[in-house]
Amino acid sequence: MSRSVLAAALAACLLPALALAAPAAKHPAKPTASPSSKEILDAAPASAWHVPPADTLLYMDVPAGRVVIELAPQFAPAHVDNIRALALGHFWDGLAIYRSQDNYVVQFGDPDADEPGKARPFPAGAKAHLPAEFDRSTANLPFVRLPDVDGWAPQVGFSGDFPAARDPKSGRAWMTHCYGTLGAGRGNPADSSTGAELYVATGESPRALDRNITVVGRVLKGMEYLSAIPRGPAPMGFFTDPVMRVPIKSIRLASEVPEADRVPIEVLRTDTPTFTRLMEAKRNRHDDWYKRPAGHVGVCSVAPMVRTPPAH
Amino acid sequence: MSRSVLAAALAACLLPALALAAPAAKHPAKPTASPSSKEILDAAPASAWHVPPADTLLYMDVPAGRVVIELAPQFAPAHVDNIRALALGHFWDGLAIYRSQDNYVVQFGDPDADEPGKARPFPAGAKAHLPAEFDRSTANLPFVRLPDVDGWAPQVGFSGDFPAARDPKSGRAWMTHCYGTLGAGRGNPADSSTGAELYVATGESPRALDRNITVVGRVLKGMEYLSAIPRGPAPMGFFTDPVMRVPIKSIRLASEVPEADRVPIEVLRTDTPTFTRLMEAKRNRHDDWYKRPAGHVGVCSVAPMVRTPPAH
Repeated sequence: MSRSVLAAALAACLLPALALAAPAAKHPAKPTASPSSKEILDAAPASAWHVPPADTLLYMDVPAGRVVIELAPQFAPAHVDNIRALALGHFWDGLAIYRSQDNYVVQFGDPDADEPGKARPFPAGAKAHLPAEFDRSTANLPFVRLPDVDGWAPQVGFSGDFPAARDPKSGRAWMTHCYGTLGAGRGNPADSSTGAELYVATGESPRALDRNITVVGRVLKGMEYLSAIPRGPAPMGFFTDPVMRVPIKSIRLASEVPEADRVPIEVLRTDTPTFTRLMEAKRNRHDDWYKRPAGHVGVCSVAPMVRTPPAH
Repeated sequence: MSRSVLAAALAACLLPALALAAPAAKHPAKPTASPSSKEILDAAPASAWHVPPADTLLYMDVPAGRVVIELAPQFAPAHVDNIRALALGHFWDGLAIYRSQDNYVVQFGDPDADEPGKARPFPAGAKAHLPAEFDRSTANLPFVRLPDVDGWAPQVGFSGDFPAARDPKSGRAWMTHCYGTLGAGRGNPADSSTGAELYVATGESPRALDRNITVVGRVLKGMEYLSAIPRGPAPMGFFTDPVMRVPIKSIRLASEVPEADRVPIEVLRTDTPTFTRLMEAKRNRHDDWYKRPAGHVGVCSVAPMVRTPPAH
């Protein structure tokens, strides 16, 4: 085989598992092929998409661009309330991403939080102590269960469109740590997080953290502005040299931003036939490129399905 | 709780799952705590470590630093032979990393491979066609099985210290796609990879690729020089603008490099009590920080365990 043939096929090779932005396949799909993500999403009714409430969206502006974050008050109400108060008080403006550890997390907030004279005070309305919110009752919690086995939890699926897990025996549910998960850093005491110091998972899903720390949301858009930050040279990826830290221009609730300046965004509902079809196509993917369907899909296999709302 | 207490605990918070470089815990471990990775590794006998043969190690030099790669001839003999021939012929020198897709892969080789007049010819000894090596027989294949359930394969574990899976029914084994896995890009035909175009997984383990493409090895060291590359702006993370590509200074077999210039490196053997203890400590981690052991560990949860050999 010539390299030109090899390389001509490059554009079709290593297709991402669920690539909204991927170009159409070079070759027409075989009649037996599973539909592509794009085909499934193009066929979705408008009702398959929803607009997250503006007071659950955070805009984190860093030099590289804007990161759009979705908060999950149904899982971490006290933390989300505190994060809202911190954002309204402009707590993070001028602070920094002070940790980037390969295959683990970036972490941000106040690098001087442990310096009594230098730590930035919390704004009015933000609390210095919160309860741990590692999990919650399954009562009245919508849950779209995946039939697929998971080694870390008895049941996995989606709740409020967030990757989640559930234990029917204990009646508890929690958000799972996937790529792009946002959590609240803490010290040794379970209730030592406030939401002021936050982390985002940037590598293999750190599922061992599940139920050991409070998950507060996930990145919907702009993940690449966090994940490609050079790794910190100090142990655990800390940037001890302030020059290496990535400054945070601002973190704002979308509800505080004039409507004209908001990022138009819709999230695919997981409790829809569209999502079920997407997961099934992903589970048993067979097309010109895939030779052997996995017969499985993981709760962390699917990135947040977002789109810019179509013009009317 | 004051923020100073919160922040003072930051250094202990969000400990990586298996952090060889992590500092000692601030507080003495409770008598009931599981041993730390560092404690287990410090207690390991010299025989728990092995030195990979120099003709299975590649040094990939990019501007940010040196990436050390371990090849797996036991899984992909034809591809590894071809990669050796390409390295000996200095095929990659001056070529580039031409793709960086968030939460998926970086890919490198000849960006002009599909331009008949511009494609770089293969050096003598390198073949233009190879068989697909998606899996192999389990016969005579050492396999350290994990007891943990895996959704993607009937059995998972380690073989030649590489993360791997096995299907007793079909008698086949394969390397699993984990963070840092090195594979050979291909077009639609199963046997269209040559090892000239390679990719490294840089996000959530893309396990759906297992048995759909030839895995040839893994990154042992320097992963951060690949994973932190800014993502490409074109679909699937391609850098269509040559200026954005990351140049490859050279890729060499360690066996071709004078001994004095080699990277001293040892890899922890997975068929040792030390490794079993490490996995168990990881599976049921309980210490001052972890409140709830996961009771599970994944085949991709553990990064390659490497060290610089101690001075004698």
